[in-house]
Amino acid sequence: MASTGQVIRCKAAVAWEAGKPLVMEEVDVAPPQAMEVRVKILFTSLCHTDVYFWEAKGQTPLFPRIFGHEAGGIVESVGEGVTDLEPGDHVLPVFTGECKECRHCKSEESNMCDLLRINTDRGVMLNDGKSRFSIRGQPIYHFVGTSTFSEYTVVHVGCLAKINPAAPLDKVCVLSCGISTGLGATLNVAKPKKGSTVAIFGLGAVGLAAAEGARISGASRIIGVDLNANRFDEAKKFGVTEFVNPKDHDKPVHEVIAEMTNGGVDRSVECTGSVSAMISAFECVHDGWGVAVLVGVPNKDDAFKTHPMNILNEKTLKGTFFGNYKPRSDLPSVVEKYMNKVTSYT
Amino acid sequence: MASTGQVIRCKAAVAWEAGKPLVMEEVDVAPPQAMEVRVKILFTSLCHTDVYFWEAKGQTPLFPRIFGHEAGGIVESVGEGVTDLEPGDHVLPVFTGECKECRHCKSEESNMCDLLRINTDRGVMLNDGKSRFSIRGQPIYHFVGTSTFSEYTVVHVGCLAKINPAAPLDKVCVLSCGISTGLGATLNVAKPKKGSTVAIFGLGAVGLAAAEGARISGASRIIGVDLNANRFDEAKKFGVTEFVNPKDHDKPVHEVIAEMTNGGVDRSVECTGSVSAMISAFECVHDGWGVAVLVGVPNKDDAFKTHPMNILNEKTLKGTFFGNYKPRSDLPSVVEKYMNKVTSYT
Ligand SMILES: NC(=O)c1ccc[n+]([C@@H]2O[C@H](COP(=O)([O-])OP(=O)(O)OC[C@H]3O[C@@H](n4cnc5c(N)ncnc54)[C@H](O)[C@@H]3O)[C@@H](O)[C@H]2O)c1
Ligand SMILES: NC(=O)c1ccc[n+]([C@@H]2O[C@H](COP(=O)([O-])OP(=O)(O)OC[C@H]3O[C@@H](n4cnc5c(N)ncnc54)[C@H](O)[C@@H]3O)[C@@H](O)[C@H]2O)c1
Ligand SMILES: [Zn+2]
Ligand SMILES: [Zn+2]
Ligand SMILES: [Zn+2]
Ligand SMILES: [Zn+2]
Repeated sequence: MASTGQVIRCKAAVAWEAGKPLVMEEVDVAPPQAMEVRVKILFTSLCHTDVYFWEAKGQTPLFPRIFGHEAGGIVESVGEGVTDLEPGDHVLPVFTGECKECRHCKSEESNMCDLLRINTDRGVMLNDGKSRFSIRGQPIYHFVGTSTFSEYTVVHVGCLAKINPAAPLDKVCVLSCGISTGLGATLNVAKPKKGSTVAIFGLGAVGLAAAEGARISGASRIIGVDLNANRFDEAKKFGVTEFVNPKDHDKPVHEVIAEMTNGGVDRSVECTGSVSAMISAFECVHDGWGVAVLVGVPNKDDAFKTHPMNILNEKTLKGTFFGNYKPRSDLPSVVEKYMNKVTSYT
Repeated sequence: MASTGQVIRCKAAVAWEAGKPLVMEEVDVAPPQAMEVRVKILFTSLCHTDVYFWEAKGQTPLFPRIFGHEAGGIVESVGEGVTDLEPGDHVLPVFTGECKECRHCKSEESNMCDLLRINTDRGVMLNDGKSRFSIRGQPIYHFVGTSTFSEYTVVHVGCLAKINPAAPLDKVCVLSCGISTGLGATLNVAKPKKGSTVAIFGLGAVGLAAAEGARISGASRIIGVDLNANRFDEAKKFGVTEFVNPKDHDKPVHEVIAEMTNGGVDRSVECTGSVSAMISAFECVHDGWGVAVLVGVPNKDDAFKTHPMNILNEKTLKGTFFGNYKPRSDLPSVVEKYMNKVTSYT
């Protein structure tokens, strides 16, 4: 590779200030350091988490910054110590990493790697505490270790999933955040049984994937909840069978759902980021066995508040990052699922 | 039985008013109606739940009432339709029942029977909405369907566990509430793995049994948390290895525990009834895999409040009544465990 060890100058969409339009700039991308990989990004999509941190209303502002974390690309060069990736490999960068050494990486239950878990407040690389992006010498901050709104980016090797080179990167790039998050939240965390009733709060990309997870688990009723009624037509394609718009009702949405379901749903998955939806998602699950899973990213000052009796009533509350998938170990098989068009579990 | 179908006059400790000393009275105990059983109570103990509803500070007051729900007795007579109990059977009355017909009773996960689950606000029997206790014609309310502070009481057949007649009732009576609740909260709900670290909040009867559950599960560290340092000596006998008194620290107890455990315990079981302890018990579990189980009975106006990020960090929050044991199906085997002096699971 001609560029190995060299700075690459390329185009990137830079956020100079909170809430201001991104500006296409020429940026300098430094070569990868130890355990880092420089990736040529071919496709990148937009997730609501980018928007939150760009708006920086309820979040810590850090600018100038290059956002983007849902993407697919090809390894351009690797830094010292990187042994399991080489130039030309197809990869998906992921906002949460897997060092394979820490207690979380060694635990069957957790994907919250001590070294590489999501850190929205850090704008630099771990190796030297500096950014690999600059414009005329001015450093531009990274975002969640991925910064894919750039033709080239530098990512820790632990935040890259090596995938089947036959997989179409323009399609599977969305598996690197929202879709896997929603799918995994249902399949790995909520785990609905065949024939059960599942409520999905928020029908964006994450919620649609959560609904898809419920569908392939064999749920018999999938109730979609969104403030935006336009989401329903799309949601039907992902298996949603009923729709509740909280705006259409005078009573709290958890009561509406309890009435529809003789006491509550078996599982709920919250994919909105709204703390009131998180509380409703918990309160709408059935006592005795209901499980609620939170996925949405809350604001800094939010409080989750409920009467403790709701907990005592044998409901379970859980949260997940990235649908509990370990990015390097598990994401390749999610891509394979797509390649094999798996539509139900048997 | 001479008394079948007759009113029995006997002694009972009656609570005439909230917080006032119980008065020993002669009460009339009506015969059992359909699906009811009249039980001669031989032994009864005191649980904190009795105290809360007697104080009626944070709870709905209902007086005059006969409290008591941790007891052992012998069936005196049975009402119409009762087929699986007969006079002379040894039974433990339980505050939560098992009808064996409803969705909860048929679910593997729940013990919150639709018909007979704990109802602290109901002071009457289900069959006719009336009390079986009276003093000179004045009805005296029941408590959680058991009212064991009386020589005779009437209980729904679904709230009676038939046990091995060889079991000493003076000992096993405590299995009908606190001990099974604590033990089951750990064994059935928190499910600590061998070698794990467990925190127990509150070292009353329930908490000591929860600690015992952790000990027989093979937990390597059991951290007892109580505001009353006097509880520690007793707790050592039940396997507690370390003690934290929140009063001894300037920082919140969940931070103290995080420091002691490199980030948090694997499991916590809250057995206090204090909402601040419930929140601490949740916040002190390790991210990625920690599970917190709430057992304590909260006050009516309490709010469980935490930052949603604590949930998102892959912690699990659950609650339980009666340690998720189904009273009729499971309690006999808990009694057998005592008879066989089971001390560890293999
Ligand atoms: N935990 C994770 O690993 C992870 C990963 C990716 C995304 N996320 C978060 O998941 C959430 C969803 O992401 P997305 O990209 O699908 O967002 P999106 O904006 O496309 O979709 C969110 C949907 O929720 C609806 N909504 C908002 N408030 C609501 C309320 N109170 N009740 C009902 N519906 C409501 C909106 O109308 C919208 O349709 C965001 O908070 C995002 O930050 C979390
Ligand atoms: N969920 C159920 O099925 C069930 C069944 C039985 C009892 N309970 C409840 O379990 C709880 C414990 O019952 P018990 O009989 O063991 O009570 P107890 O009064 O004997 O013990 C409670 C202990 O908690 C300690 N404590 C109180 N506040 C605390 C705090 N903030 N931090 C640390 N320690 C604190 C007290 O000092 C005491 O030692 C009660 O709330 C009771 O109502 C629930
Ligand atoms: Zn995302
Ligand atoms: Zn790791
Ligand atoms: Zn009790
Ligand atoms: Zn039942």
